[in-house]
Amino acid sequence: MTTKSALQQARLYYHSKLPMILRDLGHIACVKGDATSSIADADKLQALFPKTFGQPIIALHHKEQRTKAHEKCIGVLFSGGQAAGGHNVICGLFDAIKSFNPKSSLVGFVNGPKGVVDNDIITITQELVDRYRNQGGFDMIGSSRTKIESEEQLKAALDTAIALDLDGIVIIGGDDSNTNAAVLAEFFRQNSCKTCIIGVPKTIDGDLKNEQVELSFGFDTATRIYSELIGNIAQDCLSAKKYYHFIKVMGRSASHIALECALQTHPNYTLIGEEVAAGGKGLKELVCDLSDLVVSRAEKGKNYGIVLIPEGLIEFIPEIGQLIRELNRILTKEGIGDKSFNETKNSAVGALSAESKEAFDALPPNIQEQLLLDRDPHGNVKVAQIETEKLLIQLVREELKVRKKKGSYKGSFHPLPHYFGYEGRAALPSNFDAQYCYALGKTAAVLINAKATGYMSCLNNLAKPIENWQAGGVPLTMMMNIEERHGKEKPVIKKALVNLNKEPFVTFAKQRQQWQNEDHYLSPGPIQFFGPDDITYTTTHTLG
Amino acid sequence: MTTKSALQQARLYYHSKLPMILRDLGHIACVKGDATSSIADADKLQALFPKTFGQPIIALHHKEQRTKAHEKCIGVLFSGGQAAGGHNVICGLFDAIKSFNPKSSLVGFVNGPKGVVDNDIITITQELVDRYRNQGGFDMIGSSRTKIESEEQLKAALDTAIALDLDGIVIIGGDDSNTNAAVLAEFFRQNSCKTCIIGVPKTIDGDLKNEQVELSFGFDTATRIYSELIGNIAQDCLSAKKYYHFIKVMGRSASHIALECALQTHPNYTLIGEEVAAGGKGLKELVCDLSDLVVSRAEKGKNYGIVLIPEGLIEFIPEIGQLIRELNRILTKEGIGDKSFNETKNSAVGALSAESKEAFDALPPNIQEQLLLDRDPHGNVKVAQIETEKLLIQLVREELKVRKKKGSYKGSFHPLPHYFGYEGRAALPSNFDAQYCYALGKTAAVLINAKATGYMSCLNNLAKPIENWQAGGVPLTMMMNIEERHGKEKPVIKKALVNLNKEPFVTFAKQRQQWQNEDHYLSPGPIQFFGPDDITYTTTHTLG
Repeated sequence: MTTKSALQQARLYYHSKLPMILRDLGHIACVKGDATSSIADADKLQALFPKTFGQPIIALHHKEQRTKAHEKCIGVLFSGGQAAGGHNVICGLFDAIKSFNPKSSLVGFVNGPKGVVDNDIITITQELVDRYRNQGGFDMIGSSRTKIESEEQLKAALDTAIALDLDGIVIIGGDDSNTNAAVLAEFFRQNSCKTCIIGVPKTIDGDLKNEQVELSFGFDTATRIYSELIGNIAQDCLSAKKYYHFIKVMGRSASHIALECALQTHPNYTLIGEEVAAGGKGLKELVCDLSDLVVSRAEKGKNYGIVLIPEGLIEFIPEIGQLIRELNRILTKEGIGDKSFNETKNSAVGALSAESKEAFDALPPNIQEQLLLDRDPHGNVKVAQIETEKLLIQLVREELKVRKKKGSYKGSFHPLPHYFGYEGRAALPSNFDAQYCYALGKTAAVLINAKATGYMSCLNNLAKPIENWQAGGVPLTMMMNIEERHGKEKPVIKKALVNLNKEPFVTFAKQRQQWQNEDHYLSPGPIQFFGPDDITYTTTHTLG
Repeated sequence: MTTKSALQQARLYYHSKLPMILRDLGHIACVKGDATSSIADADKLQALFPKTFGQPIIALHHKEQRTKAHEKCIGVLFSGGQAAGGHNVICGLFDAIKSFNPKSSLVGFVNGPKGVVDNDIITITQELVDRYRNQGGFDMIGSSRTKIESEEQLKAALDTAIALDLDGIVIIGGDDSNTNAAVLAEFFRQNSCKTCIIGVPKTIDGDLKNEQVELSFGFDTATRIYSELIGNIAQDCLSAKKYYHFIKVMGRSASHIALECALQTHPNYTLIGEEVAAGGKGLKELVCDLSDLVVSRAEKGKNYGIVLIPEGLIEFIPEIGQLIRELNRILTKEGIGDKSFNETKNSAVGALSAESKEAFDALPPNIQEQLLLDRDPHGNVKVAQIETEKLLIQLVREELKVRKKKGSYKGSFHPLPHYFGYEGRAALPSNFDAQYCYALGKTAAVLINAKATGYMSCLNNLAKPIENWQAGGVPLTMMMNIEERHGKEKPVIKKALVNLNKEPFVTFAKQRQQWQNEDHYLSPGPIQFFGPDDITYTTTHTLG
């Protein structure tokens, strides 16, 4: 942003604390562990990544001897949607390579992977870095959702790396972008290019995590902002005592954000997509469960409540998930013309299976329209834009009418829909995200200095005080398996779904019955940057 | 809330600063000015308020002599929607009457005016007050939108006041509730009841202000929260560069909230209802203006932007306002049955004037449905729930399609709707609102101690340092005029609309052209409670 608010200006001067190991980059040893494998499909992945598969995990350790560090020339890019803290990765990277050698240089690829293919760069100077410390957004260099996938794009990227004589490229992105980073690392190695590729785990959705990666950055800030809003609404709800707030939160498929926000705010009811899928509950049953909640609270004189809905829920409802998959197949084939709703409906519905036709017919017309008309350039249904919160409101309202007629419900139902998403992606990073990102950037620089490629910059022990965090690199191929995408087998980093047998879900499951009947709302309030430690620095429940 | 977050707990210990004049309640003189009149209809108001019309403004001054203050028994209630800081009014009131005499007592009327009619109270103890200092919501005693209007209700209120032997009742509410306070004060005086009635100006909408009242409480916190979110979205917008965010903000009829948020965040386009009405712009013209914005930005390569829409806009669009008024009349007559959309549509549309029928037919079906089916218990259209942001998106999208076909537009348009309202009403009050409310509560106690009735507690010089604020009381009748409500002449406190000839609108009008073409987004970030003064304590642009 060209003009900064007073708070944004104050944040420029915030000094991120560092893990002990990163405080003196002049004395770091990159200690390699045993050879690794992948989470599945090792043979196939080995064949696809002959040069980079099986590399050891790298742990950073202090050493007495001074680390050799020369002048470095590094490129950095953002890939995909915003997550708070991105600029701090660049700051950490910049400060690290300058500490190696003041002549080191950092360039930013403009508007994401596209910038690599087109060799479109800006030089990241001290002055530029200092304007973006602890700031939200990705606007220093921009981002995009393009990928470096085709042979042509890979070659163009190679040309750019050679032309700029880069020692490394740091790709700040989610699971797809890090999969891309692995492909690029392998391609560069195969072409004997010196440029090392390091990924940095970014996504507010929290679905890029595994045995090695505890958390992606941006999740902390986003869930705190959504929780601020949910907590405020809960406080309002408790005073007004007349509304049911159906709040949908961002997060793509996985329900990590909804779960984290539930633990931060204690809504009366939280749907978890993964649980719905595991239980095989259909839409009717979900509506029945929600109506039970409304009825049982009404019996206690409570005609208000908070219901939390993950954005990805809709795909986890078995018959709707099936319907969406069928529609995607049908509509992709059909092509996306300027057909009217009725034309599209007639041709698409005719091609559905009997079960999916039934599921489609049970949906209100506005949702039918969203399923048929709001499609991405590939013809896929835009799941994020389906108004699940309104769908549930409509269906619960109908169910309650039926119950009222039967005499089993006597309350009043005034529902209000909300959707939180874009508010939490580009915000000023929380102190946690600011520090985490700064450390991720420094670690990426150390890995490149050690000539590691095909690794993800990684910090561990995040729930402990920052002094005790461990830093290192995890081979990207280690997190991969083979999945079908658009009908083809592809090597990908596996997305993490909510694990129903582990924390934090288990803690949530233990408490939710109580939250349903009584009101245990918690209102964390806005993110604070100054003041007591227990307010300005906390970690998410997801970290345990 | 039964469980408090770490921040809520920390806020319990925040000490509100006080204006110099309120620091020692033992030495205060209530100095009376000249007799007052009303803003209009003086004769009619004098006839309606024979005992309380024309009272002088009261200013609090320091005096050397000790003020006589005896044991007081006071009742307090919240009326209407939440606004941040309400609990602090109660805290100020409590601390003040206890400083007069430790035997003083405060009772809270449960769930608003209803509690007065039913004599439903809770005793507000030191322990209770200490649990709600600087906390959001109205949950300590609850609120409601009931009124004390009918002869029966007024008598019941009188019975309550006598039964509890109250020296005063403090009504914390908006313009309607303060009108109610005036009626109650007059009724009590006419019945020789000693209980004084003092109003406190509350509403996030900012429409309760005039020559004497600078601001209602809650506006500061609400606009800061909406501005936090708008600023975050603007930051996201600037990084993603692909969405048009159409953001509607709460605020009832007047556009004060939208205007304040525009000044805090600099969106590309802000609609001000009062300006639309003054210019006589119809919906088509507004859509044309918005489409011009999108086209002109697209020509600069910018296919993104932020559009801010006040909740009350829809009523200010001449032909839609007319349509809503006609529908209200028709649908109120018709009664609200369980008629289907088509039945209601046929009967209602048939009764519309030709112009309104045309306006109705030009609306998309989903908006037609909202106009016809979402009605309040009196049959009125629920203006707040009309999705104006989506209406504008739909119409702009259609207009852009036409322009694309003509070749005058080549960009892409990906709009996203947002609505912010409930998030900002019950939040933790900003330092400004916390202090303002605490001072309002203390002032109310001083006025009751001086046996003033039919007054509004009032603080002035709010844009200056709090030390310099002036305190006093303004006669409620002074702010009143006669207006038609449901076909009857009623004495009411006049709602303040945005004044197009004064600040802050003038400042806004000067800058907006620049904000349209360039991106001057400002992101104020979340409300901060600790840290430097310029971050933790600011005043709104509205205070100027």
